[in-house]
Amino acid sequence: MAASHSLKATAPPATPLTTALTTHLASLLPSSVSRDSLRTSVLPHLLTAIAATSTALRNAQDVSLAGSSNSFGDDQLNVDVLAEEAIRLCLAQCPSVVTASSEEDPVEKPVQHTGLPFQVIEAEQDRTHGEVYTVAFDPLDGSSIIAPNWTVGTILSLWDGTTALHASPKKKQIGAVLGVYGPRTTAIVALRLPGQEGKGVCFEVGLSGSEGGRQEWDLIRPDVSYAPPPFKTRYFAPANLRSTNTHAAYAKLISHYMAEDYTLRYCGGLVPDVVHALVKGHGVYLSPVTETSKAKLRSLYELFPLALVVECCGGRAVDPVTGEDILGDKGVEGCDERGGIVCGTAEEVEYAKDVLCG
Amino acid sequence: MAASHSLKATAPPATPLTTALTTHLASLLPSSVSRDSLRTSVLPHLLTAIAATSTALRNAQDVSLAGSSNSFGDDQLNVDVLAEEAIRLCLAQCPSVVTASSEEDPVEKPVQHTGLPFQVIEAEQDRTHGEVYTVAFDPLDGSSIIAPNWTVGTILSLWDGTTALHASPKKKQIGAVLGVYGPRTTAIVALRLPGQEGKGVCFEVGLSGSEGGRQEWDLIRPDVSYAPPPFKTRYFAPANLRSTNTHAAYAKLISHYMAEDYTLRYCGGLVPDVVHALVKGHGVYLSPVTETSKAKLRSLYELFPLALVVECCGGRAVDPVTGEDILGDKGVEGCDERGGIVCGTAEEVEYAKDVLCG
Repeated sequence: MAASHSLKATAPPATPLTTALTTHLASLLPSSVSRDSLRTSVLPHLLTAIAATSTALRNAQDVSLAGSSNSFGDDQLNVDVLAEEAIRLCLAQCPSVVTASSEEDPVEKPVQHTGLPFQVIEAEQDRTHGEVYTVAFDPLDGSSIIAPNWTVGTILSLWDGTTALHASPKKKQIGAVLGVYGPRTTAIVALRLPGQEGKGVCFEVGLSGSEGGRQEWDLIRPDVSYAPPPFKTRYFAPANLRSTNTHAAYAKLISHYMAEDYTLRYCGGLVPDVVHALVKGHGVYLSPVTETSKAKLRSLYELFPLALVVECCGGRAVDPVTGEDILGDKGVEGCDERGGIVCGTAEEVEYAKDVLCG
Repeated sequence: MAASHSLKATAPPATPLTTALTTHLASLLPSSVSRDSLRTSVLPHLLTAIAATSTALRNAQDVSLAGSSNSFGDDQLNVDVLAEEAIRLCLAQCPSVVTASSEEDPVEKPVQHTGLPFQVIEAEQDRTHGEVYTVAFDPLDGSSIIAPNWTVGTILSLWDGTTALHASPKKKQIGAVLGVYGPRTTAIVALRLPGQEGKGVCFEVGLSGSEGGRQEWDLIRPDVSYAPPPFKTRYFAPANLRSTNTHAAYAKLISHYMAEDYTLRYCGGLVPDVVHALVKGHGVYLSPVTETSKAKLRSLYELFPLALVVECCGGRAVDPVTGEDILGDKGVEGCDERGGIVCGTAEEVEYAKDVLCG
């Protein structure tokens, strides 16, 4: 499937970056760290993929029809496929992305750089000292809220090397990009490079000039992080609220938020729900797992990249059953492993963990 | 303020309607009902206003900065003003809209058709047999969720005559348009014309071709309505959840939804929250009023138009204190009157009303 995608259509032209964004990337990734391809090719192509998906979505008015019948059938899947195709085409332009898998096609496969002349690929590999990356992505997260035209997102995860399997997410997942498709098109970019003592950075970019003229990615906020206490307004986003009926600890936690006057914001889209807390500076997102309500979030396409973003912003992300950090040394054995998550402001995650895990 | 808006800038070119949408409007408003201006000028200009607001928002990346500081100061207000200006400019192009007021400038004032030659205005008034309308609008609803790039909306309410004050909303509010700014730009249009025995219609339109080429409004769903029981999935959207601490009946209602396995979707934007239920076919939105949590939704700019949309879709909208229909014969004496609302699927509103009003 991946190979056929890269053959079928033409890749969108690269979305340029403003000087401010180019300068910011150069400051985070100076040539001394030997990540030339990451800075000049991989990240720009991932952002082009988000821009292309945004365009595809904006013109996909027929998804509304799928929602009207309350069955998420063919129309809805078409949007997922549009996003999948747009992203695969962009990855095919990027010689150092050698492997990819996605929630729509959860098998790691070599990326076919079919649109690129052999000389270009070879020159790029020479120039970048053999940097190679794997991309794991969820092309369109939030299918249940696409029909009502609520904000949805794309999750892109970047791994150092030729596979994301059997690898330590703590050490090998070096970047994540969350595309946010709302009234504007924005993206949250998190990076944590090996050899820099685990230090992570996170920044926000926005797509400007989207009507008519030339689109470009601009730097919106050079530093995205959770606010320190005291918190003016505290937010909670409880997924799967129905499971409070069988999960006493979760019910207790919800009662706590209500009694303590937390503000509810829960749209049901993983990307917008997590990004809300990043923009507001405070929040806790909870997706518990119970006997009757099984884990449904994919480690590779959802949990790992979200946890990376959250940690790079100074927050925490833990497993709601074990209480362990989502990003440890233990990787996944297969593309379909799943779990739950509690993430956000560190203090809130600690509290929720204590209640949920006893 | 209104007059200066119409003088300051140039109105955006009218956004064309597709043949399908033009035909649909003609079928709802045949020339026999003498609403020529409504069909050919007012509704197209209101849709142009939504398209113009969408464009303004899409390029307003700096709102993100306002959110990052958790203070909704100047940047945020700029977006409200952008929307206000875009809408005022469109109204100024429409000779039969003679009065307007908005949540940003809540005083009814004559619309200055300063961009139009006197002859055009006169010819239009002759042609349309003296149709005159008042528009009351909330240019940008959902300011708290603009910074995180969540879906927000515009609310436009259309009244028959030269004022929306001291007039029966049931008889004189004849239309409402909800603009929805998300991954796509869509709008819900509800009409209930006098002399048609209270019959209302509601349809959904979408803005296509938004990248590069010519934009146009297309008909997405000719008939928007709540689904009849049985309901596959039941949704609830509880505003001001914090008030459960002092409002026992509201707390009881929330417990009911949780115990009965309702699905939570609450983004905190009035337009997207109400539209979610319209698209899914089921849902109840609750914004209660208590001693400590005062009524904050404006009757003229929020409650009346939302109630019209809900009723035109076969739902109900009631006051959470009195249990009376929002749309009765009692109008408002001033532009700033406020209240709460419970609206959505008729059966759900009836149940909530019984619990809240005893």
